[in-house]
Amino acid sequence: MSEFARFLKHHLPAINQALDTLVPPATEAPERLHEAMRYSLFAGGKRIRPALTLLTGKELGVEDGPLLSGGAALEMIHTYSLIHDDLPALDNDDLRRGRPTLHRRFDEAMAILAGDSLLTLGLTVLAAEPPQVAAEKRLRAVEMVGRAIGSRGMIGGQIADLEAERQWPDDAAAVLATIHRHKTGDLLASSLRLAGIYAGVSEGEDVLLDELGHHIGLMFQIADDILDVEGTSGDLGKTAGKDAVARKLTFPGLFGVEESKARLLQARDRALGLAGRLTGASGGLFPSLIHYLSTRDR
Amino acid sequence: MSEFARFLKHHLPAINQALDTLVPPATEAPERLHEAMRYSLFAGGKRIRPALTLLTGKELGVEDGPLLSGGAALEMIHTYSLIHDDLPALDNDDLRRGRPTLHRRFDEAMAILAGDSLLTLGLTVLAAEPPQVAAEKRLRAVEMVGRAIGSRGMIGGQIADLEAERQWPDDAAAVLATIHRHKTGDLLASSLRLAGIYAGVSEGEDVLLDELGHHIGLMFQIADDILDVEGTSGDLGKTAGKDAVARKLTFPGLFGVEESKARLLQARDRALGLAGRLTGASGGLFPSLIHYLSTRDR
Repeated sequence: MSEFARFLKHHLPAINQALDTLVPPATEAPERLHEAMRYSLFAGGKRIRPALTLLTGKELGVEDGPLLSGGAALEMIHTYSLIHDDLPALDNDDLRRGRPTLHRRFDEAMAILAGDSLLTLGLTVLAAEPPQVAAEKRLRAVEMVGRAIGSRGMIGGQIADLEAERQWPDDAAAVLATIHRHKTGDLLASSLRLAGIYAGVSEGEDVLLDELGHHIGLMFQIADDILDVEGTSGDLGKTAGKDAVARKLTFPGLFGVEESKARLLQARDRALGLAGRLTGASGGLFPSLIHYLSTRDR
Repeated sequence: MSEFARFLKHHLPAINQALDTLVPPATEAPERLHEAMRYSLFAGGKRIRPALTLLTGKELGVEDGPLLSGGAALEMIHTYSLIHDDLPALDNDDLRRGRPTLHRRFDEAMAILAGDSLLTLGLTVLAAEPPQVAAEKRLRAVEMVGRAIGSRGMIGGQIADLEAERQWPDDAAAVLATIHRHKTGDLLASSLRLAGIYAGVSEGEDVLLDELGHHIGLMFQIADDILDVEGTSGDLGKTAGKDAVARKLTFPGLFGVEESKARLLQARDRALGLAGRLTGASGGLFPSLIHYLSTRDR
């Protein structure tokens, strides 16, 4: 087991505990809504985003405690984005993490509203928690994450993805870069930057965290695209080969699998270089994380 | 023209200007998404919520300037809630403010994502603006509004509304009160409380603002329910008589129109009394507002 895999395993209970504390129980009204939010939130997600926040915090000298609620908030926001992406009007997916998607298990109205609730709760938690972090920093956290996931960020990437699916644009390579930068990269980069805000980093370090996060995101997304081509639905816990059927604009679709793998390694090396600049030559736990996310065994 | 109608008319340009400044232009990528957000945001809404914030601020001695971005944020959140409510999986409405609903004019994916974007932007604006208001207060604004519109607030009310539609509950009167309290009341009360936060009111005054806001919300919702029975689609700019067809749990549906009108007057009188307690005997502009919202001529 790699160093990062051990880190992830070690912190998983605390991350899940934070989520469990922050999300209303399924016994509280409206019961079905809270049950639906929890169905998607506790579906066996790897908690990569909270782990990235904790790991970055560790490298920057911030304790785990104050980072857990922020990391949990990002996981809520990530889960909302998956729930809405899976809807019939968007990607129309029946399977997610090996189980029926939320709108298949409940219904579409519930999936829309559970997603809305998780988005709302995520941003609210960033404002309200943790009380020991100064108001100024929590405010910056809401603003930074809010911008990263809005129409100029994650949602913009989702729209570009849907539009490219209808018709591949002439400048497909540039559009693909934009899609991945926003759809995956912006929230992943937020996971790093959030720890930076709590740590009180300088603007220069924030830019470095942002760049590192985006390279990790790019690498992660290329690996995901390749998995969709090479994996089976059983491996993936979601329908394999769907990208090609939907004519999604992806790295393997545009460049082929071999070239995609070469680009993945490029992004990985850039990420390793940036991690070195952030933490000193060793890169701390980042190299292990980067290798973990660039392979299929995640 | 009543005093409040004049107040509304006077402030409308500044409210619309704030919205126009805060929402990305339709010429900026992703263009169709920004166009969709603006389609619903600039559809001739009355701007009741921002006006409530401005009016409350006026009574509490806060200038308009700092209230405009907060009021605009609430209007974005209100608009998101309408866009998602209108979706086929929820109320399935074709008409809103006399024009095709967003998912009819664009498509469902765009309506889901434009709603998500407006919700995200609304909460982000509450964090980022206005710079002259202390971080502590802006943080409280995000937290207060976030809780008001989440699963325990507005979305919870929407869920209760949908569930009651499927089958009227045994305790219909209690459920109806819960639906209106959360679906309409929580965001309306936030409009008042937001001005209170900027004004630095005490906890007791905040409770009073909350109660006043909820009585205004109740009155507003009963008037709306009655309009759906008595109005025509032309009057309403949306499909009339839809509540009865959908077997919605409403005041006229449960108590009949006459009893509903009596309850509207009760709520109005309670609101007038609360306004008097807040601002002194005259109630300032509140009585005019309350009369405005309790009649159909709005």
